[in-house]
Amino acid sequence: MSLPRLGIDIGGTKCLGVVLGEDGMRLAESRRPTPRGAAAIVSSLAAQAEELAGEVGGVASVGIGMPGLVTRDGVIKASPNLVDVADFPVGRMLSERLGRPVEVDNDATCAVAAEWRVGAAVGRTDVIMVTLGTGIGGGIVANGRLVRGANGFTGEIGHVVVDPDGPPCPCGRRGCWERYASGSGLARLAREAAVGKRLKRIVELAGGDPENVRGENVQAAAREGDPDALAVVDLFGKWVALGLANLTNVLDPQAFVLGGGLAASADLYIGPIQKWFTRLLYAPELRPHPDLTFAVLGEYAGAVGAALLAEVHH
Amino acid sequence: MSLPRLGIDIGGTKCLGVVLGEDGMRLAESRRPTPRGAAAIVSSLAAQAEELAGEVGGVASVGIGMPGLVTRDGVIKASPNLVDVADFPVGRMLSERLGRPVEVDNDATCAVAAEWRVGAAVGRTDVIMVTLGTGIGGGIVANGRLVRGANGFTGEIGHVVVDPDGPPCPCGRRGCWERYASGSGLARLAREAAVGKRLKRIVELAGGDPENVRGENVQAAAREGDPDALAVVDLFGKWVALGLANLTNVLDPQAFVLGGGLAASADLYIGPIQKWFTRLLYAPELRPHPDLTFAVLGEYAGAVGAALLAEVHH
Repeated sequence: MSLPRLGIDIGGTKCLGVVLGEDGMRLAESRRPTPRGAAAIVSSLAAQAEELAGEVGGVASVGIGMPGLVTRDGVIKASPNLVDVADFPVGRMLSERLGRPVEVDNDATCAVAAEWRVGAAVGRTDVIMVTLGTGIGGGIVANGRLVRGANGFTGEIGHVVVDPDGPPCPCGRRGCWERYASGSGLARLAREAAVGKRLKRIVELAGGDPENVRGENVQAAAREGDPDALAVVDLFGKWVALGLANLTNVLDPQAFVLGGGLAASADLYIGPIQKWFTRLLYAPELRPHPDLTFAVLGEYAGAVGAALLAEVHH
Repeated sequence: MSLPRLGIDIGGTKCLGVVLGEDGMRLAESRRPTPRGAAAIVSSLAAQAEELAGEVGGVASVGIGMPGLVTRDGVIKASPNLVDVADFPVGRMLSERLGRPVEVDNDATCAVAAEWRVGAAVGRTDVIMVTLGTGIGGGIVANGRLVRGANGFTGEIGHVVVDPDGPPCPCGRRGCWERYASGSGLARLAREAAVGKRLKRIVELAGGDPENVRGENVQAAAREGDPDALAVVDLFGKWVALGLANLTNVLDPQAFVLGGGLAASADLYIGPIQKWFTRLLYAPELRPHPDLTFAVLGEYAGAVGAALLAEVHH
């Protein structure tokens, strides 16, 4: 029997570590706050890894998942949620500290590795993971292998431009897909609708000011059956589907795995997404439609995928 | 020494066949008109293949490239340029006729195989081919392997929607990339500019009617240094670059290979495409920029790639 594998997902506020058994079961887990600055992060990761490895009597491999642009060599070029970590060689630093190889990848790439190997997409050869959170992240499996790209930067699908005259994006361009189809996109769609029209119930739930509308207010009103909220959810579903149809044109996957915060309300969104996906797909009558599935690993996807990096990177 | 490989590219008007030697050299070639209907096409292909194979004393493999949606089993689901061929099992039919296996793929996938193995992208592991013709086709290499997708339909990149409120596309949707960045896109951008503004020289070259403006008129006027035409070329370059930046976000390639009819005027377009690509790339300061290269196999790319299918499919 092979040794268990250790993975840690570095988030903006906490680091979630897991040890994964041969069958994908979690044998141990721990959480630590994410400190500020590269040196402190590495010290904390090393302690967390050693503690977890000690709990299970040793591990076969160590992997790290992080948000942002992560190179094939395990260097964080930029990470929106971490402070003071531009050009952070986390792979090399942690490897030196632990005295063993450390695999590093983007958290969305970790998530697709996890869902593909032990989650919603087991046995598939062509899969796209779409994490719908504050922004949109992605990970790609093609030909039964993880696609990392020339630099390790694949899956920045939230920044596919779907309207060059659209709203400005923090990335400096306009009309990126995540301006429409993420959690913040949902809130923006709702605010735009609320300013122009009534959307009485959504605005009530937001405390009375249309400018304060958040995604949660839309969800809550939609769950009450409010027709204005359901119309916003439908429009949101159209934008999600537009991006999924675009990705289908490029990569022809067997399945999408939708994850991230919005996936927790899958029941609310899946109807509109499925309806619009069927309408927006290119040549829908000539092809089997990709399955739209939801992630099953929840908050563990990044850490579980990090634990699997040693085997999916090689 | 291994036997040479045979490939035939089925076009709307002619079928171009080549025999490829071990080093990628063309040992023989022939052209036949494309007949109408599945049975006649198969008969013509069989005769062409036997004649070419006879010229070189036998071939190791036979491959076919075709425009349109081609399944992994070699069935043409739909092909815009061929008459009476919906659901055409060209792979099986030709294989039965020749008594040997026949590999079939989309012509744009063939083109990327050709440029990757014996053309502009030799030695790369992550490549996207973009054929800019009447429409836009594409082919993808990732992890050093051709990406075919679940059904064989990867690379329909011309139908990535870049503006949901854009001009209608024959595919039934609106604002597909090829409405802007193909040969017909260039003509449309020029007509829109010509109707609203002067564009005197372009309209003269089109015979005096702005509605008759074609891509060639823009190219000719731009080569004369006409500033209106150069502005249209710049706008066109922006749209090409927008799509390339989108694909970079998804797949992080080392290089793009631009092919198709418009690549013949590469000198006219490369400046604007390169300028806008640098501006539209996500996180341009944090990554090596993919190389923008032009196809070198010209009209032979499809046939050469078809000849290589037996080795790149497996």
